[in-house]
Amino acid sequence: MVQTQDKSATQGTSTAQASAETPARPSTQDKSTAQDSSTAQASAKTPGHAWTIASLKREDNRICRLLGTEYPIIQGGMAWVANAELASAVSNAGGLGIIAAAATPPDILEQEILKAKSLLKPGKPFGLNIMLMSPTAEAALEVAVKHKVPVVTTGAGSPGKFLERLKPLGTIVIPVVASVTQARRVEKQGADAVIAEGMEAGGHIGELTTMVLTPQISQAVKIPVVCAGGVADGRGIVAAFALGAEGVQVGTRFICCEECTVHPNYKKAVIDARDRSTAITGQSLGHPVRCLRNKLTAEFERLEHDNAPASEIEALGTGKLRAAVVDGDTEWGSLMSGQSAAMVNDILPARDIITRMFSEAEAILAGVRA
Amino acid sequence: MVQTQDKSATQGTSTAQASAETPARPSTQDKSTAQDSSTAQASAKTPGHAWTIASLKREDNRICRLLGTEYPIIQGGMAWVANAELASAVSNAGGLGIIAAAATPPDILEQEILKAKSLLKPGKPFGLNIMLMSPTAEAALEVAVKHKVPVVTTGAGSPGKFLERLKPLGTIVIPVVASVTQARRVEKQGADAVIAEGMEAGGHIGELTTMVLTPQISQAVKIPVVCAGGVADGRGIVAAFALGAEGVQVGTRFICCEECTVHPNYKKAVIDARDRSTAITGQSLGHPVRCLRNKLTAEFERLEHDNAPASEIEALGTGKLRAAVVDGDTEWGSLMSGQSAAMVNDILPARDIITRMFSEAEAILAGVRA
Repeated sequence: MVQTQDKSATQGTSTAQASAETPARPSTQDKSTAQDSSTAQASAKTPGHAWTIASLKREDNRICRLLGTEYPIIQGGMAWVANAELASAVSNAGGLGIIAAAATPPDILEQEILKAKSLLKPGKPFGLNIMLMSPTAEAALEVAVKHKVPVVTTGAGSPGKFLERLKPLGTIVIPVVASVTQARRVEKQGADAVIAEGMEAGGHIGELTTMVLTPQISQAVKIPVVCAGGVADGRGIVAAFALGAEGVQVGTRFICCEECTVHPNYKKAVIDARDRSTAITGQSLGHPVRCLRNKLTAEFERLEHDNAPASEIEALGTGKLRAAVVDGDTEWGSLMSGQSAAMVNDILPARDIITRMFSEAEAILAGVRA
Repeated sequence: MVQTQDKSATQGTSTAQASAETPARPSTQDKSTAQDSSTAQASAKTPGHAWTIASLKREDNRICRLLGTEYPIIQGGMAWVANAELASAVSNAGGLGIIAAAATPPDILEQEILKAKSLLKPGKPFGLNIMLMSPTAEAALEVAVKHKVPVVTTGAGSPGKFLERLKPLGTIVIPVVASVTQARRVEKQGADAVIAEGMEAGGHIGELTTMVLTPQISQAVKIPVVCAGGVADGRGIVAAFALGAEGVQVGTRFICCEECTVHPNYKKAVIDARDRSTAITGQSLGHPVRCLRNKLTAEFERLEHDNAPASEIEALGTGKLRAAVVDGDTEWGSLMSGQSAAMVNDILPARDIITRMFSEAEAILAGVRA
C-alpha cells in the first residue's frame, strides 16, 4: 500500500485541526493526515469523514455572522455591472451587495459608494470589490478606508498589503481565490473568509471547477469558505454546502435582477443562453475570461489561434464591456457571464431571487429530513 | 419583466412533466415552464422548486434498481485502465464495474469479458464501455451481444444504432453525454439512463462543468442521471445528488484501487497530484483530453500553440496511454486523470473506496437529519 498522504494539509500545521470555534464545520480533518503510518492505514480504511452541511440559518452560519446578513450570499463583484443600485438591492434583500471598483476613477467610485449608502436600509452592510491588478486598486483602497466600507473582496492578485491596511480598521476582507495555495496564503495573511471561485464562473477565471475546488479549500483552511461558480439556484447552494462551503457568491443570476442597471439586451442574452453558450477568451494572454459567445469571442479566438501579438488581442477587448453593459451591443460587446446563464430563466427583484434560492435549498434539505 | 422561459424544457414536450414512475425525483418541473405568462410570473415569484435528493438506499434508488447493484456507483470506462480485474473488483464490491473496449481487438476483448465473468461473484452485473468513434466500436458491439453483457455505456458519438441493436436484447444502455441536447437525444432514442460528465473529468471531456451540467440534464430528462466528473468522496456524492443525480460515475479514484493493474508509477502520480496538476490537450483537434501535466502535455501545448498540423499532434499521442499504463512512463506517458486526482490520497481495495465514499455521504445526510 502506498503511504497515505493528505495533499490538502501538508503545508501549514494547524489547517487540518478541527477548531472548537467552528461549529458549522466541526471537523474537516482528513483522517489520512494521521502522522503515524499504521494509524493512517487503519483510518484510511475506516469509512466516514465527519463532514457536515453548514447551517443556512443566520444565527448558526459563520458567513451570516461575519457579514451581518440574513442569508449567506454575496453578490459577485462584476465590473461595470455591480454598481450602487445592484449592491444596495442585494444588501437590502438580505445578502451582501458588492460595488465593483474595477478601473473606476476614485471620484466616481466615491459617488457610487455614497449613492449605495443612500439606498441602503439602516444597518445593512455592503462591500467593495477591488481587482488587485487594476491600476486604480490603491486608489480604491483609500476610498474604502475613507468611507469605512464594511467589507472588501479582492480579486486577481495577492491581497497582503490590502489586508495589512484594512484589518486594523476592522474591515472584513474576503479574497477571491482559485487554488488551494492562494486560499492558504490569504488565511495566513489574515483574511476573514475566502471565496473559492470555480472556472464555470463568468469574467476572469481560474482552471479548477467548483466541484473540486470547494472541497479542497474547505479542507485546507479554517476560515469560512464561500463557493462561487455555477451557483444559480437552491440545488447549487446545497451542492456548495455539501462540498464544505458556508456561503455562496452569485454573479450571473444577479445580472438578471430587476434592480441591475445593465442594458436590457445584456439581460436578454443571459436569459437566452443555453448550456454551451459561453466561450473562454484570453487564455493565450494568461488571463482567461468567460463570456457569452458572439462575434467578439469569435474574433478573439481567431486572433489567439493565429498567435497575434498580445497588444492586438488586448486592443480588441478595449471598451467592449462598456459596449455590452451600457450600449447593449450583444454582437461586439463583452457579455461576461458564467456557465450558469443557462439556468437563469427570468428577471426578478433581487429579494425574490434570494428568497427563492434559499427556499429551494431549504426544501431540498427538508426532503432529506423527512 | 422579461417573459419567463425554461431553456431546459423547450425541446420535447414531456420532459418537464414529473413522472409518477420516478419516486426518487418526484418533481423536476421548472415552475417557469408554465405556459400562461401571468402564471409564470406568479410562480416564478413563488419560492421553492420541489427538488429532492434521491435516496442512496438500493431499494429506493433508480440506478441501483436498474443495474442490480448495491450502490449507485459506476466505474468509469477508462481506456487501458478499465480491464477485467478492475471491473470485477468494483462489481464484486457492490458497484458497476466497466470494461473499456477502447480500440481493443475483438478477440482480446472477448478474453477480457470471459476473465471478468470468471472473477465476478454470482449475480453481479458488469458493463462494457464502447467509444463510438473507435474503429472497433462495431466489433465491440457484436462482442457485447455475443457475450450478453448486461450493461453498455457509450461515449463520444451518437449511440442511436447501438440502442437499436441492444435494447431489443434487454441490454441496459447508458450513454455518456456532455450537453443537454445530447441527453435529450439519447433519452428519445431509448437510453435507460444517462451519464452527465463534467469537464473536470479525466480523458476525453466536454466544456461544461459538473456544477452546471448535472442540474440542467436532471431537469431535461426523465430517465435517471448519473453524475460524472469531480466525484471522489462522499461530499461529491451528496453534491451530485443535490444537483439532481441519482448515481455517480467515478474514474480517477478507482485508478488508485488495489485491484487496478495500472503501473504503480501511474497510481503514484495520481496520489502526488495537487489541485492544479492537470492539463487539457487536444483542444485544437476538437477533442480535448485531460491528463496530469508532464513532458508530454507540455509538448502537446507547444505543438498546438505553434499550430502544428493535426497529423503531427495526433502522432505525438500515439502509444502514450500504453506507455503510462503498462510501462509507467510518467514523463512521456498519457496520465489521463480528472481534477479530482488532488483528492485521491491513498490506494485501497475497491470495496473500501466504495463503502468509505457512501459512508461519508450517509454521514453528511445524517448530519442534516440531526
